Amino acid sequence: MNRYALAVLFAAVAGVTPAWAQFSKPESAVEYRQSAFTLMANHMSRIKAQLDLGKVNLDVIRSSAAIVNVLKSLPFEAFVPGSSDVGDTAAKPEIWTERDKFDKLATEMQNKVTRLNEVARSGDINAIRGAFGETGRACKNCHDDYKRKK
Amino acid sequence: MNRYALAVLFAAVAGVTPAWAQFSKPESAVEYRQSAFTLMANHMSRIKAQLDLGKVNLDVIRSSAAIVNVLKSLPFEAFVPGSSDVGDTAAKPEIWTERDKFDKLATEMQNKVTRLNEVARSGDINAIRGAFGETGRACKNCHDDYKRKK
Repeated sequence: MNRYALAVLFAAVAGVTPAWAQFSKPESAVEYRQSAFTLMANHMSRIKAQLDLGKVNLDVIRSSAAIVNVLKSLPFEAFVPGSSDVGDTAAKPEIWTERDKFDKLATEMQNKVTRLNEVARSGDINAIRGAFGETGRACKNCHDDYKRKK
Repeated sequence: MNRYALAVLFAAVAGVTPAWAQFSKPESAVEYRQSAFTLMANHMSRIKAQLDLGKVNLDVIRSSAAIVNVLKSLPFEAFVPGSSDVGDTAAKPEIWTERDKFDKLATEMQNKVTRLNEVARSGDINAIRGAFGETGRACKNCHDDYKRKK
């Protein structure tokens, strides 16, 4: 029995079903979190592409900010026990030994995304530019510490 | 110059920027659509797991139905020209030669997801069960015709 199956079993015995018990195996969790990050990165790029243009299409920014806002929490339930060295994951093992710090960085990113989505609704380009920069830095802060360079 | 770059160039010359021009290369489009489908499939499984239980957790169903509802349109802008034989795609080449039929099946799935999300809000388990079954069949209809078995 691998570490993931064991953790699921412990949770079941304890009478709780944590969100991460949704994954049939660690590989599925890795694929899930990578999928969410892939979509988030793509939509951050779309916003950046607009901000780099002379004439911004606000609809594109709003649509992408809303999508990132929905996705912002999804990856984190998929850093399940036993998925630190599975498949082609870029997750550093420190995620599992420094979980409080990792979760704090995740929360900071999520707060920045919430704000980005709000200012995208407002349509104030300078505010969007600022919130986008802060969101990007929040992503990078976590990548610096917890994402392996491939 | 590959088919994708050529299509992007044509679009630029024509003065239009289709949504699929967001992808830097065909491989990115494949990764993007697979990511969206991965998340959709995971959340459909979560809803199914609830419906298979004696005691349904409506919050889980509502949350997953809302996520699928946001994701339902994303994959389809990523079936870009020149991405029928890239990476480990399971997309059949007929998608590009029968695009109207493919788009029709996509729209049918999206309509079923819209309905599933609506009845999930309502909380009527029988209605959710029905809408979930119809959504699953709409997924399968398209997979039967346009997804290669791996």
